[in-house]
Amino acid sequence: MIVWVTGANGFIGRHLVHQLAGAGHAVHGVGHGALDATEARQLGLRSWVNGEIDAANLNALAAAHGLPGRVFHLAGGSSVGVSIERPFEDFSRTVASTARLLEWLRGSAPNCAVIAASSAAVYGADHFGPIAESAVPTPMSPYGQHKSMMEQLCRSYAQSFGIRCTVVRLFSVYGPNLRKQLLFDICSRLQAREQELTLGGTGNEIRDWTDVRDVARLLASVAEPSSQETFRIINGGSGRGTSVADIAAGLIRQWGSKTVVRYSGISRPGDPASLLADDAMLRRVGFDWRIPLDQGLADYVTWFKGQAS
Amino acid sequence: MIVWVTGANGFIGRHLVHQLAGAGHAVHGVGHGALDATEARQLGLRSWVNGEIDAANLNALAAAHGLPGRVFHLAGGSSVGVSIERPFEDFSRTVASTARLLEWLRGSAPNCAVIAASSAAVYGADHFGPIAESAVPTPMSPYGQHKSMMEQLCRSYAQSFGIRCTVVRLFSVYGPNLRKQLLFDICSRLQAREQELTLGGTGNEIRDWTDVRDVARLLASVAEPSSQETFRIINGGSGRGTSVADIAAGLIRQWGSKTVVRYSGISRPGDPASLLADDAMLRRVGFDWRIPLDQGLADYVTWFKGQAS
Repeated sequence: MIVWVTGANGFIGRHLVHQLAGAGHAVHGVGHGALDATEARQLGLRSWVNGEIDAANLNALAAAHGLPGRVFHLAGGSSVGVSIERPFEDFSRTVASTARLLEWLRGSAPNCAVIAASSAAVYGADHFGPIAESAVPTPMSPYGQHKSMMEQLCRSYAQSFGIRCTVVRLFSVYGPNLRKQLLFDICSRLQAREQELTLGGTGNEIRDWTDVRDVARLLASVAEPSSQETFRIINGGSGRGTSVADIAAGLIRQWGSKTVVRYSGISRPGDPASLLADDAMLRRVGFDWRIPLDQGLADYVTWFKGQAS
Repeated sequence: MIVWVTGANGFIGRHLVHQLAGAGHAVHGVGHGALDATEARQLGLRSWVNGEIDAANLNALAAAHGLPGRVFHLAGGSSVGVSIERPFEDFSRTVASTARLLEWLRGSAPNCAVIAASSAAVYGADHFGPIAESAVPTPMSPYGQHKSMMEQLCRSYAQSFGIRCTVVRLFSVYGPNLRKQLLFDICSRLQAREQELTLGGTGNEIRDWTDVRDVARLLASVAEPSSQETFRIINGGSGRGTSVADIAAGLIRQWGSKTVVRYSGISRPGDPASLLADDAMLRRVGFDWRIPLDQGLADYVTWFKGQAS
């Protein structure tokens, strides 16, 4: 099948392209980041358009390679912090790009199914324990607000125009090639042999950690619509919560270090105490997570030491 | 005070400008529609920028006339039907324009208060009886979805950047100069002396009708922030529900006609059975509706006959 991946050059996008190409799909990508033809081919892309998700680029892709049967929409802002510094940029990347994509599909490929990557950030704070998809979104940051608006656009085009959309709310995705956030930060400081490792927050924050290779398999698999519904939201989390302190300790153990971690006690704005998926719906669609946290952390350390050497 | 009105050349915008100018404010406008200097002055505008709500136009307004103390944000899509025909246009007018306005205020006038006109369409169908502001929005049309997204942008900029926003959800606004929708349609057909007047729907649809002159006074008055909250939503409805059949009968009576109305029984997509405001919050802020429905309908007929002659 011809499939398109927006944001294919991002952290999750690259893993997803690898997964889809491995399954035999003809994968084309559009989004930010310069890739020459060799790099694109190595990722598994048959073609790559470096630019906005807009009608001109989507028309060009379709003219050159045919209409897609599925679009995996991963383009969008990717940082709570950046969304607070530059909210309009986050809006443009997440919301305006989705509006242009859906409008293009409405006119040019109305039978194409959309799988859109959203975020647990739409749930906001004030949750304790597993969060079901039916919870009322109360996002705390522009990043979460914009992801929620992206979901709403998908719902609107599904409802009014029959565009089939699956929204997957991803939780804390980590894994090889992730060059930011908590795990990267800890590894960077372990490598710099910092004597004392002080992290923000309390260490008690609960997150639902998932390895990006499992997440890529998940996105590729939920693409199979199991029913005639035009819109659905699925939590892309494991249902297992792990504290930041336990993640840090596990990573340090895998690293082979004895560094002690301290916590500042100061939370970042927009950082909820707990984000844990209710995974009942994901279990109903039959997905199995395969990479346990210990293995995922070990692989991350191996990747980090390899890329840094 | 220097106040700006986006969409000042629209149906509600023109009445609001009249209200604000009459109260002594220096009113400037930006939005769609060509107005020469004489027309603008007659409306009560000190200046008018015909164009998009974007940084270039807002900068130009500020450079020429100073920063606003308040912005009344009325620009946006204004038709459920058009939003279904051209959803991207509705998105651009309602959502993208709001993103640009709020981003400009964040950078250039962060102390300016925003009063944004939203719509009861955000509530969607499945309501029976008065709807409180706390109801979970379930819009049915792109128009309602985009208004809901506009509200969410206001909430986001209030929450993360302290921009003070009041969202007023308007219900069924009618009055002099409204050249579309139910009342205009009925009057046009009465004037054409149609023998039989068949309307869509069942006639039992409940709406909360408000005269635009009251609505203009409402928008101008809720601009006074009564507390330190940065974001609030207020229903701009009267709390009195009237059926479409009763409105049609009242209008025909005011017209002096004996035409009989029939109903097709076929509802338009996105047309809810009941949209009635819970007006408890509006009563708490002390607003009084002054124009009873009979007088409003009489005035509408007078206006219609006058403009048509």
